[in-house]
Amino acid sequence: VTDARPRFAGADWGTTRLRVWLFGPRGEVLGERRSDEGLLAAQPDRFAGILEAQLASLGAARDLPVVICGMAGARQGWVEAPYVHVPATPAETFGSAIRVPGTTRDIRIIPGMAQADADAPDVMRGEETQLAGLEAVEGSRLVCMPGTHSKWVGMEDGTVAGFQTFMTGELFSVLSGHSILLHATGAPPASFDPTSKSFAAAIRTAFHDGHGFATNLFRVRAGSLLSGTDREHASATLSGLLIGAEIGAATARFGHPAQPVALIASGAMAELYAAALEAVDLPAATVDADAAVRNGLVAAARVLGLDAG
Amino acid sequence: VTDARPRFAGADWGTTRLRVWLFGPRGEVLGERRSDEGLLAAQPDRFAGILEAQLASLGAARDLPVVICGMAGARQGWVEAPYVHVPATPAETFGSAIRVPGTTRDIRIIPGMAQADADAPDVMRGEETQLAGLEAVEGSRLVCMPGTHSKWVGMEDGTVAGFQTFMTGELFSVLSGHSILLHATGAPPASFDPTSKSFAAAIRTAFHDGHGFATNLFRVRAGSLLSGTDREHASATLSGLLIGAEIGAATARFGHPAQPVALIASGAMAELYAAALEAVDLPAATVDADAAVRNGLVAAARVLGLDAG
Repeated sequence: VTDARPRFAGADWGTTRLRVWLFGPRGEVLGERRSDEGLLAAQPDRFAGILEAQLASLGAARDLPVVICGMAGARQGWVEAPYVHVPATPAETFGSAIRVPGTTRDIRIIPGMAQADADAPDVMRGEETQLAGLEAVEGSRLVCMPGTHSKWVGMEDGTVAGFQTFMTGELFSVLSGHSILLHATGAPPASFDPTSKSFAAAIRTAFHDGHGFATNLFRVRAGSLLSGTDREHASATLSGLLIGAEIGAATARFGHPAQPVALIASGAMAELYAAALEAVDLPAATVDADAAVRNGLVAAARVLGLDAG
Repeated sequence: VTDARPRFAGADWGTTRLRVWLFGPRGEVLGERRSDEGLLAAQPDRFAGILEAQLASLGAARDLPVVICGMAGARQGWVEAPYVHVPATPAETFGSAIRVPGTTRDIRIIPGMAQADADAPDVMRGEETQLAGLEAVEGSRLVCMPGTHSKWVGMEDGTVAGFQTFMTGELFSVLSGHSILLHATGAPPASFDPTSKSFAAAIRTAFHDGHGFATNLFRVRAGSLLSGTDREHASATLSGLLIGAEIGAATARFGHPAQPVALIASGAMAELYAAALEAVDLPAATVDADAAVRNGLVAAARVLGLDAG
């Protein structure tokens, strides 16, 4: 129990969900709300109302400032916060945050990062804040943020040098839900043991032979027809093929990391990627994704001077 | 105009469509019907009725024998025709055709081929008949049969040595219809120029870097966000990435072909793959897919002695 009053609020407003926290003077969490009112659920004129309702339910003062990361700053979001181009530090994105116009409350939206490389155009929104929540490390560091669209980030002394997005989670979902592989895996969500041999074998296959992606996939179906393999095996194989190719491409792009891969993830996703990295002998250090985004929002509030209240 | 009476009928009964031909004594086509009553539309007890209705509309005699290739022989089809394992010739699959029980008409179903290799399990049904429709060639030959599930086949002196299936067409469809790439490509069917620079560039990227599949895909989305690329460009890029990876993996598996790739395809699909093979400097000789399956059915009828009537 703390009697500190909130100094600012932070929000991670993604495509499918919204999370809001109240923070005290030392960045401690004084309140939290989670909702399904992500970007897909919010109409353009409803962002302010949704946020105010969440803040009211947390008992936040009417003048409590708010810092927001994520898709709220996308073109189809609340107010567009134009991308900061890499190389850049996460703190530079905070300095470029946009103030939402027309509100009495001070609300800032953190921009994402863009890589305007003709050969590797890429974008992120929200992950820059998680990166700011990592403890500082000197030298080269490889960061993995798994999910619907996994991001791999090459950092140099705290600067984002480059990054790559992989549609791994979405591929798993559309392939197991909408392709012929549905017959082998069953409809998502999948349930399989990330420590299984099937998963590790598929990780290694794809890590070493990403080229054969579309044919490796069909083996999930053919294996099911010829050997009657079960759904758990098929799901583990499909997931392993996707994640193994992701790790193979990321390490090809950013080089074999000298330090453990910083794996920003929580729960089942953290277990899945930890097992995947272990299958190809890559050391990893897991950082809780929720803690990373909270730490990043606190860092952003400090850069923006919102924590003085 | 010919006054020859039909000697036998042939059918290609696939997942989504049924085609039936009447053939004369020299294998010439005397009648043809196309229908959407593929495997997905046919209930287990409706196969006989569907086939008889098509034959009746062609005026076929009640005792005209029929040879069928394709999914009608699958476990979930009319009568299961167990796979013939490779290495094998197409003629061997004809010799293993199953006679449909309980019908007065002589109806045979050609089995597919299976590759029971633990590292590369694979299956085909229908393509073995198209392979039989190719003109014989000595030595090594690489065959490409593009489609929803593209097949690449390594042949040695007319024997199928091995093959690989790629879910290329299905991946294009589920990714452009059910993933975030829909925003970039628009819903399928896609329309783009296979001779465009976008398509050739994506073919080459993926041919040389199949590993980066899931990240190359995301570039379609990021490129659209950052540069406002149009739908035709996005569709051409997505298709090129998928087909380029397919060609890269197939030539990695079967080796760089000494003879032109036999491309069994028709219409827009033939143009698409001809452009793709040209982009990576692989000579190709196109064989019309309809002609190949008809020639194969005629060859099957001869092996089975159905053409004597």
